Amino acid sequence: MYKCSLERMTDKIKTFSKYGDAGHGGITRYSLSEAALQARAEFRKRMEAIGAIIEVDDVANMYATLPGSDPEAKRIVMASHCDSVKNGGNYDGILGVMSAMEVLETVAAEKIPHKHPLTAMIWTNEEGSLYPPAMMCSGIVCYDFLPEDIRSKFKYEDMMKSVSILDQKSTFGEALAKSGYQGDKKYRLSPEKYQYMFETHIEQGPILEDAGNDIGIVDCVLGMFNYRVKFYGQTTHAGTFPMPKRKDAFLAASKAICYLHEKIDALGYPELVYTTGEVVCHPCVHTCVPDFFEFSFDARHEDPEVLEKVLDIVKSCADMDWGGCSCEVTKAWNRDTVYWDKKLVSYVKEAAEELGVSHQYIHSGAGHDAQFAAYMLPTTMIFVQSKDGLSHCEPEYSSPEHCTEGASVMLGAVLKADRD
Amino acid sequence: MYKCSLERMTDKIKTFSKYGDAGHGGITRYSLSEAALQARAEFRKRMEAIGAIIEVDDVANMYATLPGSDPEAKRIVMASHCDSVKNGGNYDGILGVMSAMEVLETVAAEKIPHKHPLTAMIWTNEEGSLYPPAMMCSGIVCYDFLPEDIRSKFKYEDMMKSVSILDQKSTFGEALAKSGYQGDKKYRLSPEKYQYMFETHIEQGPILEDAGNDIGIVDCVLGMFNYRVKFYGQTTHAGTFPMPKRKDAFLAASKAICYLHEKIDALGYPELVYTTGEVVCHPCVHTCVPDFFEFSFDARHEDPEVLEKVLDIVKSCADMDWGGCSCEVTKAWNRDTVYWDKKLVSYVKEAAEELGVSHQYIHSGAGHDAQFAAYMLPTTMIFVQSKDGLSHCEPEYSSPEHCTEGASVMLGAVLKADRD
Repeated sequence: MYKCSLERMTDKIKTFSKYGDAGHGGITRYSLSEAALQARAEFRKRMEAIGAIIEVDDVANMYATLPGSDPEAKRIVMASHCDSVKNGGNYDGILGVMSAMEVLETVAAEKIPHKHPLTAMIWTNEEGSLYPPAMMCSGIVCYDFLPEDIRSKFKYEDMMKSVSILDQKSTFGEALAKSGYQGDKKYRLSPEKYQYMFETHIEQGPILEDAGNDIGIVDCVLGMFNYRVKFYGQTTHAGTFPMPKRKDAFLAASKAICYLHEKIDALGYPELVYTTGEVVCHPCVHTCVPDFFEFSFDARHEDPEVLEKVLDIVKSCADMDWGGCSCEVTKAWNRDTVYWDKKLVSYVKEAAEELGVSHQYIHSGAGHDAQFAAYMLPTTMIFVQSKDGLSHCEPEYSSPEHCTEGASVMLGAVLKADRD
Repeated sequence: MYKCSLERMTDKIKTFSKYGDAGHGGITRYSLSEAALQARAEFRKRMEAIGAIIEVDDVANMYATLPGSDPEAKRIVMASHCDSVKNGGNYDGILGVMSAMEVLETVAAEKIPHKHPLTAMIWTNEEGSLYPPAMMCSGIVCYDFLPEDIRSKFKYEDMMKSVSILDQKSTFGEALAKSGYQGDKKYRLSPEKYQYMFETHIEQGPILEDAGNDIGIVDCVLGMFNYRVKFYGQTTHAGTFPMPKRKDAFLAASKAICYLHEKIDALGYPELVYTTGEVVCHPCVHTCVPDFFEFSFDARHEDPEVLEKVLDIVKSCADMDWGGCSCEVTKAWNRDTVYWDKKLVSYVKEAAEELGVSHQYIHSGAGHDAQFAAYMLPTTMIFVQSKDGLSHCEPEYSSPEHCTEGASVMLGAVLKADRD
């Protein structure tokens, strides 16, 4: 039974945390930025040091491959991303890349025999923090395999024109051309060349920590829907319009938020999560009654019937009177639950058991590149415990010990898959 | 008993509505914009046509004066503004200027004898829509007379540096220099040269219309306070964080909005108005639980004790637990009720009675340049009925008949004041 190296993993965490260091414990490392290119150079250097072959596809996805003993065998790939959100932490995404590197380094150092070529991979622009959307380059690469309504959002030409949220001008296509990482389309991940995909990631939630388990055996990415709930009132002057005649869209939305929490919580599904994270208020002036207020509504659960019940409640807002304001409920998008490959999930579970690592089954509430890859290849994920469940912020933390355990579990699972 | 001319007033309304016409029934006429300069040129042309002397002070306030029979008598001024909010209506501000012009035109046409010089005046930048703050140039001109906490916001040097909300670069001072309307400080409104001030304005609320009265005899500008209510939670990922552990700042704010309406409405003051018009949400991303939410709280009532009771309720939010979120209540600013000069109010009432115009006493909930002038000169206001109470929007409307009645009432009141 092989184990990854705590010392090597600790060194990688320390090294990669420098690229995009924002100076107070976290990083800002937009895809294809100077900091992201430094991380890619580090990846290349370390992978070349163990004899891996580097390939880069046309959207800068990077592949480092150790050949296997069977020249006919397809590759097994371990992938995640090295870009971050603004003022993000040192683990989201990059832990999956470091874990893949660590697996290859362990295989090389311990001369572990393997039949299949093993590939560590970096997905470009998973966060979409600078150039939306998120999961852009897995969307492009898996395009032909995605369901129609998801696919339509990842047209190659549209993605190249995605505009920087910072300058509202420069495009992803320009950043790609300038990066020096625009390789060849023939190197793209494909079912012809690749057999399985694994992704290790931090949990980004508190479930493992609360349960006292180090590792999560992820079985699915939760289905979800995203709607917009809009209220239309009448703007009037703050000083001149009597209260009973007002149609205040913000008051309407506030009442609706309270109503939604009451009704949805009464359904009694402890695993359901729902979020109203984005708001728009108009005219948003302290001397005007708002005539428009909108919030996003994101709900996630494994069971589509549960989501259906929640959606019914959300939709019921449109039929109610909100103090003279009308309400409109519109669909933004949804996705079905994506189940990981059962055989790969069982490999991960067996590996965790053999290593004696505390573990449990868990769903992924967040989206990951792996879920697009799953439409193309048998795929699964491994979660590593997150401190306080925090992510997409600077206090995001997973201990080097847990990170190394995650890599060891992935190594064990990959070696089981290698026997197929 | 003199009456103003419906025909002349109708022509002025039609003419001024062209300057800044946004193409769908209203105007955008930022102070010192091309459209505002056209309105000023029209004012000058019409006032010169009746022999009025034009003066412009150092912040572009314009004065058109018809001499009186007594060379020792101080001027009586009628003033309002010709700038608008973005996509505003054809009456807010400009009605007061047109009414002042109409009074002078009637005096000239009917050769009405008067002792005091009579002045029609345009205040620069009342709305502050492009260069904040609102009531900028009355703040500058009345500076020495304002209460300390109001005055501190209208320092001449600061006002000149006020930056355009459109380009975030050009300043009010630059716009003033370019306008051709930067005159001489010696022409500023002052108690040495001016005896009384009147301002006619649309009501901007539905009270007169609901009561079936054409004209409002305004007795005061309501006292008010403006606070910010802030909620601090914890941002987490929308998909990965269980509901019971969340600290959702938007949910906290929504509950607080409902709480505030319940408690404040229970106080039972029908004339009280309060508004939560401006919101800030962070990070305002549909996949993140908000960790910060802030709303403005504006309350207005004549009686400071009522405002005190409302403020106590608002402040009580800070001591409550909002689902794990903390709350902070901070003061933005407040102002005391400004009462108009009792003698001038009685002149307005007598004039309305003599003309047989339906009228009532009313408070002003909105702020006006006249309230700053009131610290310097005996001042009062006249309101004209607003259709549906709408203002600061394109459907804003007052009939030519009501507008002409307003001017006639002001003429009557000015002629009474002329006897002093």
